[in-house]
Amino acid sequence: MNADKIPDIIIGRLPIYLRALQRMAEKGMKTTSSQELGDHVGISAAQIRKDISQFGEFGKQGTGYSIPFLIDKLRAILKIDRIWDVALIGAGDVGHALARYQGFADRGFQIVMIFDNDHNKVGEKINGFVIEDSARMVEKIRSAGVKIAMLAVPASVAQDVTDQLIRAGVKSILNYAPLHLVVPEGVHVQHIDPVTHLQRMTYYL
Amino acid sequence: MNADKIPDIIIGRLPIYLRALQRMAEKGMKTTSSQELGDHVGISAAQIRKDISQFGEFGKQGTGYSIPFLIDKLRAILKIDRIWDVALIGAGDVGHALARYQGFADRGFQIVMIFDNDHNKVGEKINGFVIEDSARMVEKIRSAGVKIAMLAVPASVAQDVTDQLIRAGVKSILNYAPLHLVVPEGVHVQHIDPVTHLQRMTYYL
Repeated sequence: MNADKIPDIIIGRLPIYLRALQRMAEKGMKTTSSQELGDHVGISAAQIRKDISQFGEFGKQGTGYSIPFLIDKLRAILKIDRIWDVALIGAGDVGHALARYQGFADRGFQIVMIFDNDHNKVGEKINGFVIEDSARMVEKIRSAGVKIAMLAVPASVAQDVTDQLIRAGVKSILNYAPLHLVVPEGVHVQHIDPVTHLQRMTYYL
Repeated sequence: MNADKIPDIIIGRLPIYLRALQRMAEKGMKTTSSQELGDHVGISAAQIRKDISQFGEFGKQGTGYSIPFLIDKLRAILKIDRIWDVALIGAGDVGHALARYQGFADRGFQIVMIFDNDHNKVGEKINGFVIEDSARMVEKIRSAGVKIAMLAVPASVAQDVTDQLIRAGVKSILNYAPLHLVVPEGVHVQHIDPVTHLQRMTYYL
């Protein structure tokens, strides 16, 4: 197996499989089939078998997949068999919702620092975290070795903040600002913009 | 042109093109090329030309695309040359952030009703909207003819609420609960789960 050769579209489906498997495990299920998993994620059984087989032989003909085993394998492949530190940039409404979100820790992530450039917010606490001055962002992120950032700042400053994050050593950015960020090779960005998702669906109305 | 034959993956890219074109227009730009647009969205010029040509001949050899013309065409194709009413279900942290988000109206959407099942929240106002009891959700959505919902409820109740939304006539659901929703044919769901996006990037760390 050569990790570099796995298409990104397959990598993108693994967290969806993992999430469904974890829900099955919570319900006390021990084994599943590609057909059953497919029903839970809206992806064909054949596609699931093909995707998972990229990483080895994890299922058995006739008995299917062991859910705990497949969860462990997927967590290892995705490198979330650990907890990653995350910096949150922007303490507006979206930043507040992210800072208070309880669903990160058991899925591999914890916010460890929050920055904002609004001096009225600096020093405030959200969910136990003191909001820090974004003037110190690059230095703080670099010295802590944080590699992942969530960006919840206005579109007008998002590219500038991104450039700073990259200087600080950040390699993964989850971007909530409604614009495409330009980053150098080796840095990954995922975009979350509710409006593009809504617009994609109105086409069918 | 037969709308049914355009692959969904192409439809999914149109809002990204539109967002970039609107930013260009805000900067006072009048024309662009597939190359330039591609640089703004991280998609190849060839792919952009191919996607856009599915809907007609919108560009001119040598002079490229008129930005206002292409914006109008994309808005018409995506049916956002109007304002769509949206129901928001769930007035927790994510619901609050969505209710207060200023970026919907100029991109084709407006929240017109907010529901929660927590009687301590019902009657409260967010951004001018009174939170209504979700017991009245089906009736209210149906009588208003709302076709789009944003779902910001806990995973444990998300499928049940979805089933109610479908009974109410909703055809497009933007789901913030961290699970895959099962819906009948003709109903579209888009999922927003920050953790699956983060997990997709840790693979490369």
